[in-house]
Amino acid sequence: MLIRKRSTRKFMPTSLSNASEKLGMPPGSLIHVGDIQEEDSRISVIDFNRTELQEPVVETVEELLKFREKDSITWVCLEGLKNVEITELIGHYFKIHPLVLEDILNTHQRPKFEEHDDYLYIVLKGLSLDRDAASVNGSFAVYHEQISILVLNDFVFTFKEKKDDLFLPLVQRIRNGNARVRNLGTDYLTYAILDMIVDQNFLLLDSLDENIDAVEEELLSNPNSNTLVAIQRIKRELIDIRRSITPLRELLSSVQRSDTKLIGEKSQIYFRDVYDHVLRITETTDSYREMLSGLLDIYVSSVSNKMNEIMKILTVFASIFIPLTFIAGIYGMNFEYMPELKWKWSYPVIWVVFVTVPICLILFFKKKKWL
Amino acid sequence: MLIRKRSTRKFMPTSLSNASEKLGMPPGSLIHVGDIQEEDSRISVIDFNRTELQEPVVETVEELLKFREKDSITWVCLEGLKNVEITELIGHYFKIHPLVLEDILNTHQRPKFEEHDDYLYIVLKGLSLDRDAASVNGSFAVYHEQISILVLNDFVFTFKEKKDDLFLPLVQRIRNGNARVRNLGTDYLTYAILDMIVDQNFLLLDSLDENIDAVEEELLSNPNSNTLVAIQRIKRELIDIRRSITPLRELLSSVQRSDTKLIGEKSQIYFRDVYDHVLRITETTDSYREMLSGLLDIYVSSVSNKMNEIMKILTVFASIFIPLTFIAGIYGMNFEYMPELKWKWSYPVIWVVFVTVPICLILFFKKKKWL
Amino acid sequence: MLIRKRSTRKFMPTSLSNASEKLGMPPGSLIHVGDIQEEDSRISVIDFNRTELQEPVVETVEELLKFREKDSITWVCLEGLKNVEITELIGHYFKIHPLVLEDILNTHQRPKFEEHDDYLYIVLKGLSLDRDAASVNGSFAVYHEQISILVLNDFVFTFKEKKDDLFLPLVQRIRNGNARVRNLGTDYLTYAILDMIVDQNFLLLDSLDENIDAVEEELLSNPNSNTLVAIQRIKRELIDIRRSITPLRELLSSVQRSDTKLIGEKSQIYFRDVYDHVLRITETTDSYREMLSGLLDIYVSSVSNKMNEIMKILTVFASIFIPLTFIAGIYGMNFEYMPELKWKWSYPVIWVVFVTVPICLILFFKKKKWL
Amino acid sequence: MLIRKRSTRKFMPTSLSNASEKLGMPPGSLIHVGDIQEEDSRISVIDFNRTELQEPVVETVEELLKFREKDSITWVCLEGLKNVEITELIGHYFKIHPLVLEDILNTHQRPKFEEHDDYLYIVLKGLSLDRDAASVNGSFAVYHEQISILVLNDFVFTFKEKKDDLFLPLVQRIRNGNARVRNLGTDYLTYAILDMIVDQNFLLLDSLDENIDAVEEELLSNPNSNTLVAIQRIKRELIDIRRSITPLRELLSSVQRSDTKLIGEKSQIYFRDVYDHVLRITETTDSYREMLSGLLDIYVSSVSNKMNEIMKILTVFASIFIPLTFIAGIYGMNFEYMPELKWKWSYPVIWVVFVTVPICLILFFKKKKWL
Amino acid sequence: MLIRKRSTRKFMPTSLSNASEKLGMPPGSLIHVGDIQEEDSRISVIDFNRTELQEPVVETVEELLKFREKDSITWVCLEGLKNVEITELIGHYFKIHPLVLEDILNTHQRPKFEEHDDYLYIVLKGLSLDRDAASVNGSFAVYHEQISILVLNDFVFTFKEKKDDLFLPLVQRIRNGNARVRNLGTDYLTYAILDMIVDQNFLLLDSLDENIDAVEEELLSNPNSNTLVAIQRIKRELIDIRRSITPLRELLSSVQRSDTKLIGEKSQIYFRDVYDHVLRITETTDSYREMLSGLLDIYVSSVSNKMNEIMKILTVFASIFIPLTFIAGIYGMNFEYMPELKWKWSYPVIWVVFVTVPICLILFFKKKKWL
Repeated sequence: MLIRKRSTRKFMPTSLSNASEKLGMPPGSLIHVGDIQEEDSRISVIDFNRTELQEPVVETVEELLKFREKDSITWVCLEGLKNVEITELIGHYFKIHPLVLEDILNTHQRPKFEEHDDYLYIVLKGLSLDRDAASVNGSFAVYHEQISILVLNDFVFTFKEKKDDLFLPLVQRIRNGNARVRNLGTDYLTYAILDMIVDQNFLLLDSLDENIDAVEEELLSNPNSNTLVAIQRIKRELIDIRRSITPLRELLSSVQRSDTKLIGEKSQIYFRDVYDHVLRITETTDSYREMLSGLLDIYVSSVSNKMNEIMKILTVFASIFIPLTFIAGIYGMNFEYMPELKWKWSYPVIWVVFVTVPICLILFFKKKKWL
Repeated sequence: MLIRKRSTRKFMPTSLSNASEKLGMPPGSLIHVGDIQEEDSRISVIDFNRTELQEPVVETVEELLKFREKDSITWVCLEGLKNVEITELIGHYFKIHPLVLEDILNTHQRPKFEEHDDYLYIVLKGLSLDRDAASVNGSFAVYHEQISILVLNDFVFTFKEKKDDLFLPLVQRIRNGNARVRNLGTDYLTYAILDMIVDQNFLLLDSLDENIDAVEEELLSNPNSNTLVAIQRIKRELIDIRRSITPLRELLSSVQRSDTKLIGEKSQIYFRDVYDHVLRITETTDSYREMLSGLLDIYVSSVSNKMNEIMKILTVFASIFIPLTFIAGIYGMNFEYMPELKWKWSYPVIWVVFVTVPICLILFFKKKKWL
Repeated sequence: MLIRKRSTRKFMPTSLSNASEKLGMPPGSLIHVGDIQEEDSRISVIDFNRTELQEPVVETVEELLKFREKDSITWVCLEGLKNVEITELIGHYFKIHPLVLEDILNTHQRPKFEEHDDYLYIVLKGLSLDRDAASVNGSFAVYHEQISILVLNDFVFTFKEKKDDLFLPLVQRIRNGNARVRNLGTDYLTYAILDMIVDQNFLLLDSLDENIDAVEEELLSNPNSNTLVAIQRIKRELIDIRRSITPLRELLSSVQRSDTKLIGEKSQIYFRDVYDHVLRITETTDSYREMLSGLLDIYVSSVSNKMNEIMKILTVFASIFIPLTFIAGIYGMNFEYMPELKWKWSYPVIWVVFVTVPICLILFFKKKKWL
Repeated sequence: MLIRKRSTRKFMPTSLSNASEKLGMPPGSLIHVGDIQEEDSRISVIDFNRTELQEPVVETVEELLKFREKDSITWVCLEGLKNVEITELIGHYFKIHPLVLEDILNTHQRPKFEEHDDYLYIVLKGLSLDRDAASVNGSFAVYHEQISILVLNDFVFTFKEKKDDLFLPLVQRIRNGNARVRNLGTDYLTYAILDMIVDQNFLLLDSLDENIDAVEEELLSNPNSNTLVAIQRIKRELIDIRRSITPLRELLSSVQRSDTKLIGEKSQIYFRDVYDHVLRITETTDSYREMLSGLLDIYVSSVSNKMNEIMKILTVFASIFIPLTFIAGIYGMNFEYMPELKWKWSYPVIWVVFVTVPICLILFFKKKKWL
Repeated sequence: MLIRKRSTRKFMPTSLSNASEKLGMPPGSLIHVGDIQEEDSRISVIDFNRTELQEPVVETVEELLKFREKDSITWVCLEGLKNVEITELIGHYFKIHPLVLEDILNTHQRPKFEEHDDYLYIVLKGLSLDRDAASVNGSFAVYHEQISILVLNDFVFTFKEKKDDLFLPLVQRIRNGNARVRNLGTDYLTYAILDMIVDQNFLLLDSLDENIDAVEEELLSNPNSNTLVAIQRIKRELIDIRRSITPLRELLSSVQRSDTKLIGEKSQIYFRDVYDHVLRITETTDSYREMLSGLLDIYVSSVSNKMNEIMKILTVFASIFIPLTFIAGIYGMNFEYMPELKWKWSYPVIWVVFVTVPICLILFFKKKKWL
């Protein structure tokens, strides 16, 4: 078996030195590369056809082989990729190309669709809201999990990085004997899985939408430098989301243009449906991006406006009191011959001046629309 | 009948938790997803050919079946989608694919054209000005209604979210026995419906144009922070409008490239005409977008200019009176040996200084073009 | 005759209510939609072949029919579209599709080329400088006139909105018996007309260029808020110009790709030539656009620079006189035990301080490059 | 001979009125349109094959005709286009299409490649640094000279606007008997000429690069409003350069896609080589453009920074001395009952206040990172 | 042998005059053009097939010829291009086109793939972090080394500019008898080399990522003008990186579309894999670019914010003390009839005023959210 380690494919190594080391490592075995380090692996198997359904507990990969003879669809879902041996054995028994196995384990893949002789390989990102990060610092954080799908004649394998309930609704639909998925082949099951993953993004977009609204409200009521940081953080998440989602468009149009026998004529309409969803999602992210740049414009303007406000106060105070202080200064001079100092009405008169000058100035400013 | 509920297709659920709940719901029946909750449904039917015209009152979907035998065109318009049973039955009797039915009911579709074996499915957005919002806060708000069109051999179905008079002019044209629409097939009727919906956008653009002009005028006469909010609001509506309109281009070019038998050779020129309208609309929105970014530039500059004005006042006052105050301060000092204090002409002379210094300063500033 | 009124195609109705009214009007007759309301129509006819030339005065459309039998090229130019009957009759006698007639009369068309069975339809915008607007407020305004061209086997019809001398040079060339246009067919005449209209844009671009230069000069010598308005106005005109010109590229490449028999092999080189002109024009407008955005950058910067200048004056005055005022204030205090007040040289010494402190400050500022 | 004057093709007439006049001129003869008014024309001829080389002095166009019979390559280089008769005669004897002749003489062409039956027409811009402008005001100015190339079976004509030594190195290579150009046909000669013109741009880019570096250095050391003008001037030149260079990409890919017999299979690799150079040049100009926009960002920021500096000085001075002045003002009041005035230690104490207050303020500001 | 010197192809000559000189040089011999002036050249040879492996020390190019007869793959790696004779001889013996040899030696090539009759030519950039520059001034600098690959039937030549260990891991894999590269042809070796070069970029991106993070942190904690310079420097490097990497996409898709016999069907999947890596790299650089523009926005805003802070201090101080100073000034006037001066409680009362006025002002400012 020829599976070499390709450590250099690691996309974002935690540290530079670490990656440099791996660059020189001798090839030999598959390794898992990814940020999500789920300790245990879980294999779930569901085998069904129109009439029967079986959910066996499977301990070893070899146990899967017996389903090959059965006239039924077997969906094997592996969650947790750290134990690379399982993937290696699946690759061995089901004759998967070593490069595909590497791509499954290296979780920094670009979403893509590959058509091989006996199977299809689909890899994409499942995005979900990172609720922990959100609850800690109230910010918006997204979790990018890589999900690989292998579609064979009677088998569908899904490889997930972490254990969760993403596919539970689908499994329940399969358990229900009447569901359409029971009557159709692996292509429809593949569609249902893709649909599940893609539709999850709508939840994400809702949350994004809420965050943008919150930021916008804050911008209009009380803009501060945290608002800018918040805008920037959402923008950055959006860049990542777009990077995960944009290639899906291409992926699904490849699926549709493909003439593989593994996807039947009748299932094409379903894939077109997922494709429409992807288009809607990408267009929505595009418009969020425009909105964010609009928010930035508001922020910059509101900062300028605030400066204007501050300048106005200063100007009012300075422009009014500086002349008055000067007037007071005049009569604080100690010249011997200053006739006004001796007059009896000087002091009341000067108070009249002190009151009328500011009034005139303010009226003048108002008229000039400076205030 | 196999129609499953696909709640996850909902695009913008009102709340996140709500959407999450639905994600796990068992499939089984079609549901309506949308913001417009028209309580009652209204079915209008108009059945016509070159010589006859009939506008029967239809209570149940089954009543429509009798028109199938007739050699005439039957246009069925359903307004209000909340009662999903009607759509379900139409789908059942006219053999519409379940995914299409879901798309009709889920009103967050991207405009698209789908060619099925026996029918065409067109879904697009009818944009109209939300006059209520406009009258309340004077702002510009747009109403995005989803309109679905099913084109069969002898039938045209339109599904609207709300009840209004959008199609009334067309209905009146049909009632008029001489109208071209009476002589041609369902394809021309489809064109007439599309044309009606697309041309409605011109009204919207007029209103948008007026709003932009009003904002521009405000910008040049009296820019304030509300102006920015207004620009931003129009920009946001424009983003939405573009999202509804841009896919129409693709939709109509698909219609033209399609080789379906449901659209005759002779009708192609009409669809090309609608296509031209759509091009004009998209180009107009593009130029509005550029104009808005121009307005933003003016706004930012006008804020800066205003700041300059304020700074100038401050500078004039401070630069003139601060030196004078200093001079007055000098002669307010209490030194015993200050010869000027004793001189008889000191006080008049100092007044001369108080008058000439500001004059010189102002002249100097003017010369330097600082003021 | 089936020509229905399609009022909703009107692009920019003068008022919203007006347009809404028309939306419900019964179709029946062609109407003219446009901003240019030329009262009278003028029909000019020139009929020529290699040897003969005739310029008959034509009163009715029927008089044109006799030229159909003649082996000659007949160019009919209609100026002023308000009298829709003429267009209607031309359509009737020469079998023009009703949609084309509507497009001719509705002067908000997007430039396009349509190939019909027996004729070609070209519609484009003739841009000319609006000298009236220019002379009144010195600003740059452009006149967008719609010109439609119908190319038949032996006839060329041109429909203009207003009466002017645009085609005069071409007419004079035709009158000259040796001109190439006399020897070639309607395709060459069409080319000559297109060339005339397209080349007029160069004049416009010259004027635009001059305006941009003038604004740039003003920017560098004396930027003020009017400069910004001027930039914005040119930008807006440019957006409109681009909207009129950009589709020409597509139009002419359609003409070249077309395999209509109405355009001979030999004339293709001429259309390619016009195409090159259009490319040059669009590229020039593109670069003007970039220049304008550059001007905006200069404007914004110059406003900031001016602010800096103002701030500097303020800073110099305040920073120098405020400390001095403080010093004077010290010796204006009335403490009984202030030994300096009694000293004989105090007053001269304080004057030395008053002179040296500002000098030191100014030197210090200069050294720090703050001034 | 049918060569009409097409004055309207003039791209940038010196004055508007001038151009308007020409619009109405009767066609009849070719005229030269261009900014470069080289007085005399110079015809250089070099005729060579593998073994022989001849550089005859040619006075009239007719003398060229004798080379038509010879089995050799004749390169005719015309410098200075003002004497249009020469071009006219070349067109006449070598059967060049009148439109091509016009394009040669009207030096505002967009670079393009035209394939005619018996010859190829290439027109492009030779960019060179305008050293005169550079030496006068130290700015960066580019000279756009139009160069036309006509490739016939045995002849290559080049038409240049001005006399210079651009082609000298190539001529010297031809004179050298061993050069590859001697052994290959007109296609290789054409390549060599194109290569010469294109590679000249690298010099230009070097100079541009130097200018950008100089501006960047100035920006970082001492930004002033001249820096902005310099950035803007380079940007403007870059817009022009891009306009001259970008179409070259298309030109050369047309040459490569062309199936003309005038360019042999073996020469294709050479044209691909020039194409690569053009790609490199356009990509370089693209990155210069991005750099310039980066410089603009720095400029704007540095202006803001400078403002901040100025504001800081003002703030320090005002914030420190205004409170002190107030304190001094307190004890300058003339109330009868002010006990402090009588105290012996008041004056020294107040001096302590005068010293400690500013120190505290400065420390406070520093701590707050305001200074 | 016909190899001419083409000095004008030099892309970035160190000085203008230098380049001008070369423009006129007689062609004749290949020269090396590049910034990296590695003194010595090193030839490494590794010859292997499934069973055997040989690493002969080769002194002259002629020694390579004997491997031509052997049924094995020979990989020749030349490091250091200054000694052009080696390249010249390789070109001579292996019949490489002179233009290809020039491209190998002129190290300013754009990455490209050329298909020749008997060999393939691939040229691309190996990017590596310039650690020297990084350690000196802490900035981010990238080293662009040109690597050329010639793929023949049994030979692979690689030409590198400098000596380093880039290929060492690959060599070690070859030495290991079991490696896949031992069993497959020159196409797989070519893939392995390309993969090595491309994957090196991931390291670079990591470093870039770290730099951007560091700058972002600095921006949020303590933005200063150096931060801007750092952003600008990264931006500039990014422009260069993109220029080196973007053409790789095209290069690899050419390789995949190519129908050369030198790349077997089975190897296509490997090249597709490299292609995916390149896509990922370009998308990552695209998102870095967006992030940088976001950082610039933060910088500009933070400068404005800082200005606001400074203005606030000034405003607080000036607005509070200027009125107080005025009040003190009033009672510093020397009028004879000022009753307050005589009152016993005047002085305490005025102190109450001095304390309450600022408090009121501050509360007022706070309420107005000005502070």
